[in-house]
Amino acid sequence: MLDVCLAGTSGMVPLKDRWLTTLYASSDGHAVLIDSGEGTQVALAAAGCHVKRIDAICITHYHLDHIGGIAGLLLAMGNAGRTEPVDIIGPPGLVEVLKGLLIIAVPPFDVTCYQVVGSDEVICRAGKIEIRAFSADHVVPCLGYTLTLPRKPKFDPEKALENDIPIEAWSLLQKGDSVKIGDRIVDPSLVLGEERKGLKLLYSTDTRPTDTIVEMGKGADLMILEGEYGTTDKIDRAIKWGHMTFPEAAELAKRSGAKELWLTHFSQSMPDPEEYLENAAAIFPNTVIGYDGIRKTLAFED
Amino acid sequence: MLDVCLAGTSGMVPLKDRWLTTLYASSDGHAVLIDSGEGTQVALAAAGCHVKRIDAICITHYHLDHIGGIAGLLLAMGNAGRTEPVDIIGPPGLVEVLKGLLIIAVPPFDVTCYQVVGSDEVICRAGKIEIRAFSADHVVPCLGYTLTLPRKPKFDPEKALENDIPIEAWSLLQKGDSVKIGDRIVDPSLVLGEERKGLKLLYSTDTRPTDTIVEMGKGADLMILEGEYGTTDKIDRAIKWGHMTFPEAAELAKRSGAKELWLTHFSQSMPDPEEYLENAAAIFPNTVIGYDGIRKTLAFED
Repeated sequence: MLDVCLAGTSGMVPLKDRWLTTLYASSDGHAVLIDSGEGTQVALAAAGCHVKRIDAICITHYHLDHIGGIAGLLLAMGNAGRTEPVDIIGPPGLVEVLKGLLIIAVPPFDVTCYQVVGSDEVICRAGKIEIRAFSADHVVPCLGYTLTLPRKPKFDPEKALENDIPIEAWSLLQKGDSVKIGDRIVDPSLVLGEERKGLKLLYSTDTRPTDTIVEMGKGADLMILEGEYGTTDKIDRAIKWGHMTFPEAAELAKRSGAKELWLTHFSQSMPDPEEYLENAAAIFPNTVIGYDGIRKTLAFED
Repeated sequence: MLDVCLAGTSGMVPLKDRWLTTLYASSDGHAVLIDSGEGTQVALAAAGCHVKRIDAICITHYHLDHIGGIAGLLLAMGNAGRTEPVDIIGPPGLVEVLKGLLIIAVPPFDVTCYQVVGSDEVICRAGKIEIRAFSADHVVPCLGYTLTLPRKPKFDPEKALENDIPIEAWSLLQKGDSVKIGDRIVDPSLVLGEERKGLKLLYSTDTRPTDTIVEMGKGADLMILEGEYGTTDKIDRAIKWGHMTFPEAAELAKRSGAKELWLTHFSQSMPDPEEYLENAAAIFPNTVIGYDGIRKTLAFED
């Protein structure tokens, strides 16, 4: 299961009733955070997200509304008792940006920086959550992320018998470990059934629509995309500033075959983004307008 | 008149219902801000303080809860249309700290930095508000500030007549300008009465009690002091971390002869600091427990 909480939903400016966009996803006591603008530590506390559990912080890009709160967050994690190392992922330039922002903040744990440009490879993991990054299309270098939780294949006793595996070895093989039986090294695949669909979440702000988002989002259980502007008449601004309209985001969710779409990163010119829901839902019906603290547990199928 | 607003009152940690301590004081369209922790731009917006008017930002010290929001604040000032230069004052190290924190934020106006250790001199002005700094006693170099608004002496027509000043020159002299009459340069003092008491506000967090606070606060219309801990039984923590208890702050206000005391910078261990008011009021009756958005207009006497 993957617990997902959008603790903030504002774009560009932190407002008194809307925190800057930030995503907290956790599974089995390990959490990933995407973006940490000014006030994110407060947004997480308000939403009941445990900062101590954050193993990895993914930064989309180096605009202040996406990383301006990282020093406060890291100190808050330390105050919460975190001592284990933390991974921080972002576009090239990460180390230099952190050196600046952390000039008067020294977290009480090690930090490993991953400066990436996007690829299909897993960059790092938080528990069993796999983190991948892809290039977005913003006015500065920017990344989108997928968080996936793989699912082990089912144990297949018939296959185990066919492959002549003694019952004593079944339990270890079922867990995914190789087992030595006599002179033979037995691979778990000899007792396991077919690959099973895991869970996939795609997150992308700030960006124009791209084919990469569609590709990376194929079969996603949840897509979380920016909806800076509710209406198509703001398209010129969206293009100029590297953002999307609700219809554009909905079109991406539709093309990717995602199960559900959450919109976030709303312009302060939209006090009530819910008013524009229909502009997205007409294209992709299972659209939800994000709000601070919205949460959902994604569960494996069947 | 000096309008004073304490837009935040939390110490060390920004909370969902209490912003980090920050003071906004303005007169005649010119404002001074003291401290800018994470979220201060939101606190100011919530309290209705105009960030565009901030001519000077005074930083007490370089702990994150006092300066971590400066990048966001400067950008917010720019977004509000500010183009005039801004003065920033703080202890030595200011330039280096700002270089770090502003690594991804370039405000659209010039910034002049004043690195000071405290003295009786006016460091700079916001309109007619004079800013002075003094050394506080914290675990790192730290400044307290006084904001004073001088008051012009009254025009004294009898003195003007005695000094043989023609009526045509009265108006200019009354404004404080020197005037040339024939070969004679006439000084405004020849038509003005005695010095009149202006307004004085003293602000000091984070600090242990000091004689300097008493000295600098002599005759203050308002003292704003930290009250990290409500009760004397926290004195060991107060000494260890360079903070004050309510009774200690009240004692300083009493000794300085201030008219009124506001307490602020409350520990997160005190959800309702009002509970401990009596611990200060027993020593200095005109004590007010600060809260986010508390405001007052200080007016000249009579």
